[in-house]
This record gives sequence, structure tokens and C-alpha cells, in this order.
Amino acid sequence: MFFNMYNRYRFKSTFFLSGSIMDPLKKFLVSPTKSAANQIKLKNWDPQYSWNKSKIDTEIEMEQFSKKISELQYKLFAANNKSLLIILQGADASGKDGTIRQVMGALNPQNCYVKSFKVPIETELAHDYLWRIHIEVPSKGQIAIFNRSHYEDIIEPSVNNLISKDHLILRCKQINDFEKYLSENGTTIIKFFLHISKDEQKRRLQERIQDPAKQWKINESDLVSHRNWDKYMGAYEKVLSSCSRKWAPWFIIPANVKHFRNWAISYIILKKLENLKPEFPRVVLNPSDFIFD
Amino acid sequence: MFFNMYNRYRFKSTFFLSGSIMDPLKKFLVSPTKSAANQIKLKNWDPQYSWNKSKIDTEIEMEQFSKKISELQYKLFAANNKSLLIILQGADASGKDGTIRQVMGALNPQNCYVKSFKVPIETELAHDYLWRIHIEVPSKGQIAIFNRSHYEDIIEPSVNNLISKDHLILRCKQINDFEKYLSENGTTIIKFFLHISKDEQKRRLQERIQDPAKQWKINESDLVSHRNWDKYMGAYEKVLSSCSRKWAPWFIIPANVKHFRNWAISYIILKKLENLKPEFPRVVLNPSDFIFD
Repeated sequence: MFFNMYNRYRFKSTFFLSGSIMDPLKKFLVSPTKSAANQIKLKNWDPQYSWNKSKIDTEIEMEQFSKKISELQYKLFAANNKSLLIILQGADASGKDGTIRQVMGALNPQNCYVKSFKVPIETELAHDYLWRIHIEVPSKGQIAIFNRSHYEDIIEPSVNNLISKDHLILRCKQINDFEKYLSENGTTIIKFFLHISKDEQKRRLQERIQDPAKQWKINESDLVSHRNWDKYMGAYEKVLSSCSRKWAPWFIIPANVKHFRNWAISYIILKKLENLKPEFPRVVLNPSDFIFD
Repeated sequence: MFFNMYNRYRFKSTFFLSGSIMDPLKKFLVSPTKSAANQIKLKNWDPQYSWNKSKIDTEIEMEQFSKKISELQYKLFAANNKSLLIILQGADASGKDGTIRQVMGALNPQNCYVKSFKVPIETELAHDYLWRIHIEVPSKGQIAIFNRSHYEDIIEPSVNNLISKDHLILRCKQINDFEKYLSENGTTIIKFFLHISKDEQKRRLQERIQDPAKQWKINESDLVSHRNWDKYMGAYEKVLSSCSRKWAPWFIIPANVKHFRNWAISYIILKKLENLKPEFPRVVLNPSDFIFD
């Protein structure tokens, strides 16, 4: 964070020298042409993919990404006219918390916050399902990170057969409209699905059972959701296909390999922030207004 | 953040080898025995003080502090039974935003947020002055950073002669009671006053006028408050003396030298977190509850 000891690695990083051979913005994007009738299949997306990038290489590059992200974040704050909403979804143990700690930790909390959406409480259930979401969207100049989101209101009812197929389709449409409205009003939206394999989930849950530093993270419901793996993936295929739109794209991030997951997400956030082109506001100062003693 | 290249400096850091010769927890603390009748004098506190610590030394040590703070923050989150409230106050251009960016940037936004209190809006004014503050106090497991706070409700009225002396004394008492109540209910409170000199404020304001990347931060009210320097310092002397209590101590941080300011604040936060001794919750797991396919 404070000074850069990595310069000596600069010329080892082929990624920066040769330009991008593999562009995460394209490779992991769910095409906006997908729909409920023309769904993606998660089995065609490799959760183990890591582009043969070593841990050390991704970390060196991420230091550079983080530095640029920090500068852009500060300009976004100063410009105070646009906002960024990052949505994280994924199965239990897919790495949502770890991503926040390892990727978003580099962000300045002055204009960045994380909202974790849990099982809705009474007041929330008394409202429409987007009510509690709308309250938490970022204001101008801010970056919000949603750890789970309104997509839980499709995934959970879908897995547990709580609402009809027609109702699920309706919700997808409502969410697309809501996100479009937000984007028309200055919010850039990026959605990450952390894609792990069923075996990797099992491995991570078993680790949580055994590691005293991780036991607090597990409860029996995790096992239930592990048993329902196929239903969850089916629900995600619907959502990812129906709700990836150009104003709020879904990215399917290979997440078995944690350092690659972090690298890909960090890269995509950087590119989206660069596209926003935030600038310090131009202020026309009248020096005669500023007279010191 | 990602890996530590500073090990080779380890043995150059006399601070860690020889133990603390100067303890910021003591040196910068406003004694809880102070009161309105027995006030501190800010002219006796040197804003330029930096313990002859070089920028590079503070940065190397802060890397180590940050790493430890991150670990303790994660345990605080896991333990989910206590919270930390950090209050930043100081004159315009005293470095509140910079402190947040450079010190608090190391915190994980998952369980840390910044609340900046501006001039109260209509709904806020319609309530008692602690109403908007209480809403924002950290929940269990969280760290909140207040950029300005309820102390503005003493400083501003005091400087502008808006409420009587008796009323100011009453507010100090109410704030002490409020903070005591919070601490009795699991919130550790640390309050930092960023202490700069009048000349340093002038220098920073002039820099804001001249630097295109900083012009957005200045407005005419900054000049008014510069002219009222003595009144502000007088109001702060009252507040610092009347409201430093063992459950919510004030620290007067020398803030002319930015890298020392960052170092001292980082050190104090680390020590306070260490005192909290957060631990991962002990969970008694019944392996028979966890049967995989």
C-alpha cells in the first residue's frame, strides 16, 4: 500500500508487456443475448480455470491494479456524480467473504461499503423484495458491494419451489427493469457469480468443520444446500441467462483457484472504473475570495 | 497487502527491537482527570512533533501494524460480540480524509464503514442532536469510523455563540453519559483530535487553491473558519478537557507531519484492538450432523 517494492518485477509481467491475450471482460461475460429460452450451461464453464497464472504473478499484478483502483476511486469520490455497484453471488463457500477481504480490502472505506444481505427480517418481508435493496444502493461518488442481493429472491424460492415458474420469470424481468433504471441514473453495475465445483464446495465445508478458525462459519444449512447442489446450479443458470444485460452484465468467475478469482475480479473492476473516466471537478476559483490574515 | 517484502528491514526497526521508549497511548492521551475547570492548553501540545521518525520507518512499521490490525479485525467480526467506534475531529484541512485513506484503507470493508457527518439536514434537525449519531453506531463485530461527529454540536454552536455556556456544559455531560452507555454495551470508543498549527492550515488551504486536484475540496467557509482559528481552538480545549474519560478517551495527535500522524493513529488502533482480545468463537460441532454425499 505505502510504497512499491515490486518495480523490479515489472519486466517479468508478460501480461502488461504483451497486452492481454485473454480478456476477462470477454471470456467470463455472460452474453446479453442469452435468455430463459437460450440458457448457458454451467458445466461448460470450467471452475478450475486459472490461465496457468501463478499465485505470485497474480499478486504482483494485483498490487498494480489496486493502486490504479485506489486512484480512480478517489476521483469517483471527488467527481461525486456517478456510482458503482458490485454484486457478489455464489454457492455457500464459493468465496464471497474471501473476495471482499482480499480484493475489496484495497478500497478506501471513505466511499466504499459492503452490505451483506441475510435472510429477510420482519420489516423487510413486509415490503416488496426490492425495497431493502433500493435503500442500500450507492449514492453519487460511492462504491457499494453487495454480498448476496436481490438474486437470492429468485434463487431460494426457485430451489425450494416456493413460487411458480411464471412468477420467477416475472421477477427476472422486474430485476432487469430495476437495474436498468439504476444504470440510467448514474450507477454502473457489475455482477460476479463465483463458480466453484461441487467437489470444491465439499472440500471447503470439510475444512470448515476441521479448522478451529473456521468452525464458526458452518452450520447445518450448508449441508442441506450442498445436497441441493444441482437445484442451485439450475436456478443460477436461469438467472445468469435471463439477467445478464449490457447495463448490468453477469461475469462467471472461475473460483476454485482463489488467487485467480481475486485477480480476475480485480481486473474487471479496474476496467469498469477506467471506463467511467472519473475526473476531479473543475472549479473556477476567484482568488479574491480567498484572503488570508 | 499481499505479501511482505519488508522482512529485510526487520532488524532496522529499533521501535520493535528496543520496545517503546515513547508510548503514544500515554503521550497523546488527554488525562481523564481534566475538566472544564482544569483545561488543557493546546499551545502546550506540539503539532509538529514527530519523534524524529522518518517517513520510511513509519511506513515499514505501519505495514506490520496493518497486518495485525487486519487479523484482529477479522476475529472481531467472527466473535460478533463487541464493536469499535473511532471518532475523528479536527480543524478544516487537519487531515481527517487523508487519515481515513491512508490508515483506515487497510481495514476490510466487510465489517468497517465510514460515516461522514455533514451539516444536519431537516429530518436530523427535527430530532435531538444524538439521534443521527445513535443510528450510525457500529453493530456487534463492526468497526465504525466517524468523520466528524456529535462533537460538532458543541464546537460549532460554541464558536458561533449559538447556545449558552450552561447549555454547552450540559451537552458535554450528555455526551459523556451517551458514550458511557455505549461502552457499557460493548462498544470501545477511541477519539482522535488531529492537531495542526494555524500556519499549517494556511499552507494546506493555499495548496488547495493552487492544485487542480485539490480545488474541489475548498470553499469560502474554510477561510471563515481559518479566521476564527482561536475560537475553534478554545472550543476544542473545552471539549477535549470535559469529554476525555476512561471509557472514551481523547488523543491529541500531532498532525502537521502526516506520516507521523498516520503512524500514531495506526499504533493506537492496534493497541486498542489487542486489548479487546477478539477470538474465533468456540463451536461444539457434532460430526454426525455433517454427512456428505
